[in-house]
Amino acid sequence: MPELTIAEVARIAEGEVERGDPARKVRGMAPLDEAGPDDLSFVAEARYHAYIHASRAAAVLLARDAAVEIPEGMAAVRVDDPRRALARVLGVLYPPPAAEPGIHPTAVVGDGAVVDPTASVGAYAVVGDGTRVGERARIHPHVVIGRGCEIGAEVVLHPHVTLYDDVTVGARSVVHSGARLGSDGFGFVPERGGLKKVPQVGGCRIGEDVEIGANTTIDRGSIGDTTVGRGTKIDNLVQIGHNCRIGSHVIIVSQVGISGSTRVGDGAVLGGQAGVQGHIEIGAGARVGGQAGVTASVPAGATVSGYPARPHREAMRIQAAVFGLPKLVQRLKALEKAVFGRGAEGARAGSHATDQAGGEPPRDA
Amino acid sequence: MPELTIAEVARIAEGEVERGDPARKVRGMAPLDEAGPDDLSFVAEARYHAYIHASRAAAVLLARDAAVEIPEGMAAVRVDDPRRALARVLGVLYPPPAAEPGIHPTAVVGDGAVVDPTASVGAYAVVGDGTRVGERARIHPHVVIGRGCEIGAEVVLHPHVTLYDDVTVGARSVVHSGARLGSDGFGFVPERGGLKKVPQVGGCRIGEDVEIGANTTIDRGSIGDTTVGRGTKIDNLVQIGHNCRIGSHVIIVSQVGISGSTRVGDGAVLGGQAGVQGHIEIGAGARVGGQAGVTASVPAGATVSGYPARPHREAMRIQAAVFGLPKLVQRLKALEKAVFGRGAEGARAGSHATDQAGGEPPRDA
Amino acid sequence: MPELTIAEVARIAEGEVERGDPARKVRGMAPLDEAGPDDLSFVAEARYHAYIHASRAAAVLLARDAAVEIPEGMAAVRVDDPRRALARVLGVLYPPPAAEPGIHPTAVVGDGAVVDPTASVGAYAVVGDGTRVGERARIHPHVVIGRGCEIGAEVVLHPHVTLYDDVTVGARSVVHSGARLGSDGFGFVPERGGLKKVPQVGGCRIGEDVEIGANTTIDRGSIGDTTVGRGTKIDNLVQIGHNCRIGSHVIIVSQVGISGSTRVGDGAVLGGQAGVQGHIEIGAGARVGGQAGVTASVPAGATVSGYPARPHREAMRIQAAVFGLPKLVQRLKALEKAVFGRGAEGARAGSHATDQAGGEPPRDA
Repeated sequence: MPELTIAEVARIAEGEVERGDPARKVRGMAPLDEAGPDDLSFVAEARYHAYIHASRAAAVLLARDAAVEIPEGMAAVRVDDPRRALARVLGVLYPPPAAEPGIHPTAVVGDGAVVDPTASVGAYAVVGDGTRVGERARIHPHVVIGRGCEIGAEVVLHPHVTLYDDVTVGARSVVHSGARLGSDGFGFVPERGGLKKVPQVGGCRIGEDVEIGANTTIDRGSIGDTTVGRGTKIDNLVQIGHNCRIGSHVIIVSQVGISGSTRVGDGAVLGGQAGVQGHIEIGAGARVGGQAGVTASVPAGATVSGYPARPHREAMRIQAAVFGLPKLVQRLKALEKAVFGRGAEGARAGSHATDQAGGEPPRDA
Repeated sequence: MPELTIAEVARIAEGEVERGDPARKVRGMAPLDEAGPDDLSFVAEARYHAYIHASRAAAVLLARDAAVEIPEGMAAVRVDDPRRALARVLGVLYPPPAAEPGIHPTAVVGDGAVVDPTASVGAYAVVGDGTRVGERARIHPHVVIGRGCEIGAEVVLHPHVTLYDDVTVGARSVVHSGARLGSDGFGFVPERGGLKKVPQVGGCRIGEDVEIGANTTIDRGSIGDTTVGRGTKIDNLVQIGHNCRIGSHVIIVSQVGISGSTRVGDGAVLGGQAGVQGHIEIGAGARVGGQAGVTASVPAGATVSGYPARPHREAMRIQAAVFGLPKLVQRLKALEKAVFGRGAEGARAGSHATDQAGGEPPRDA
Repeated sequence: MPELTIAEVARIAEGEVERGDPARKVRGMAPLDEAGPDDLSFVAEARYHAYIHASRAAAVLLARDAAVEIPEGMAAVRVDDPRRALARVLGVLYPPPAAEPGIHPTAVVGDGAVVDPTASVGAYAVVGDGTRVGERARIHPHVVIGRGCEIGAEVVLHPHVTLYDDVTVGARSVVHSGARLGSDGFGFVPERGGLKKVPQVGGCRIGEDVEIGANTTIDRGSIGDTTVGRGTKIDNLVQIGHNCRIGSHVIIVSQVGISGSTRVGDGAVLGGQAGVQGHIEIGAGARVGGQAGVTASVPAGATVSGYPARPHREAMRIQAAVFGLPKLVQRLKALEKAVFGRGAEGARAGSHATDQAGGEPPRDA
């Protein structure tokens, strides 16, 4: 297991040692409250500053402008951005486990498949006919890859990933356990006797530096491809429908669902559990709130939320008005009393509205 | 790879060649903007007519009544329904890859299991004791089938599908990668020291011509069965709870969740991410909007949406009223000014409602 | 297959035989309408009492205070709680299938891994270097376990479960097919050229007596651990983000998503499809409604629902007011007519609000 001096930490993190012994060594990274005397820790938000004094950490990564006093015996490394520093130091302190190059004797490699000699193919993995696996790619045990796929250099496919036939995964992309790439899209037409499947014959193209979460599903195109652009990060249990075109550097949080043929522009961010209708466009840099229901195209750069999704400020205004409704009903009553008088209530239209508004919730709700 | 003349395309699609050379051949199907001179394309919606002129497709499938001029050199095949025609032609142009009948030497077949000699069982597949696999069924690599299951003729189980013990899958059904059929339902009772599991001993019965999407989960019955009727199509990442009874020809879009013991009538359609409470009934032919929260039974033929789900027209009316709320508050203020006068505001009950309604959004929302 | 006399059923269920022959035998458990003359059945809710008379069941489990007459020829066993009685009797009538102890010859067990001789490791299972598998644990076929994991006594890992490196599963816990434990959390920082992965180096610790549903994903910690406490029950397709701390005896219904670093207190209940924001706290014993969107911490014991989640009574009151909105608009109109007169409409601010409130629904909604 690697160890780093505080001075080395500072160098990797592009920071400076504020105090403490630069030659002291750390062997791991831990949260402030769990760190021991061999650990480095970090603080990215002011509300956690108070925890520094009780921590046993050897050193702490800290923003340059954080107004906090470091206790006796702890070193501090000041950096521009503690999260970015964390990512860099972790990459050195915890190098990803190396895989032996080569094909496990139990792996099944199909006719015409080409596995680069520097790649690793794990136990029981299946590589389909004509598939190519690039340099230093790592195919974990129990991965099943169909026919005619292209796996780029340094790609990691975690255990139990499935690639259907004719799927491309770009260099350095990581696909987590149980993700399904290139499964059939959901396309049926009414025929005599029921729904008839529309054969899904398009491809599924994943760009470079993409990360795809556990148990996420990305359907192949019906005709034409489903595509995910370079650098896009997709969380767990996400559904991406056939013929979607997801741009570059998009962030898609867990359990999002995107219906078929929708386009998502570069740099867009979709919050957890959001649902996006088919055949629409989310513009570049747009932000979609968690659980939002997007039923129409969203302009580039816009932020939307709620159901159906609206510009976020408008959605907030509407929501605030909704939460104020019970009081609004009281104001309306006061007006009615002033205008119509006490006895007028039974006479006017909508006289039961008050009961409705203040009354019993709907059954089972 | 098959190729078809335009005349053959017309015959398969039950259409007529409008112009172009009926003897010209096509080898693939592609969207208008990606099609090359060997490709057939199709247009199902008027808004895409404009793309026909720039397309390099050899021919296009087109509705009989589509008012569009076909450019020089392109053939057109007029059909009643371009989507249906597409489905038929794709089935011929892209025949599903044939599987060699037989059991892969690495597959494990249990005691008393019977695999039809015309069926195919892939690498590392596991078939449990006493399970029967029907004619021409295709069990992909890494499928795990429990004990006492019945797999009908021509069923396709994609890689990494799991069937627990005692699961039935009807003829011609397709189960996509990572789907779990017959997993334990979520049933616990409070006991001394915590929750005690209620053993889930019912079955899981999938009808004929069903399609089940990737990573979908269908729990077995607690006592009695969970059933899915003939011709029903289920998308990816759907959850169906124990003892649900899903009818025939139902459409369930991705990420829908249906709680235990709910019945869904024939021909119902459930939109993406909808949630349905347990122990209720969705009537035949009912339609549930995407992301709807169904908390009470829905009559046959009804359309519901929103949370909690309401008849769609009512939900739309309510939603429109909600979106109009900020203006409604202004109207109320104007009335209050007219009735109570400027100085009255401080005096009446609910005087802070205005601030609430127009004020700050709740924290973190 | 075991069989029980009615008298034995009563003993196991801690009940009394009300009538019928205590020596009569039952061999299975079935719902009232499916039970045959060898079956036991049960009724837990008064609304199903009417089905007793048409049932062919040999005997029925029934609450002591249920006012229902038992038909001729049927035995009744009166118990305190029919559901709890059901759970106990099922455990005896349907003993879980025994697994042969031992390691299947096709299983791959890594260097330094220790599998207890009483444990069972199925076909093609992979057990990583240094991993320990406890007494009577059952590792089903096609399970992949990473390096350095700890699998407690009597744990059941169903087919196709993945454990990444350094995951702990406590004694007697059950993990259903396709669940992913210890997958990387979703952590990235902006860097030159795009988003850079924050290495996820924390662990994933599952307590004793936990149940985890099919295709559920629980991410490992970023630094520090993700933890799930003793006795907690998690349904299918749930997402739990990195560094979450889920307490003991928590119930999490299917398709719930919990973002990173959130804490859920002991005994809390989260309804299906609920979404919980990161870095907040759900207090002990709190209840979160189905599909709720929890955007802020919830106090212990509170019940919240809706989006954004509010105290349930408040949410119900607001919802009722929302459903009453169309009538409220009518009341406002009546007031305006009385105060401003018929001709005043065009003159006041917000004069189009009526059209908006009662008008066309937004496109595509």
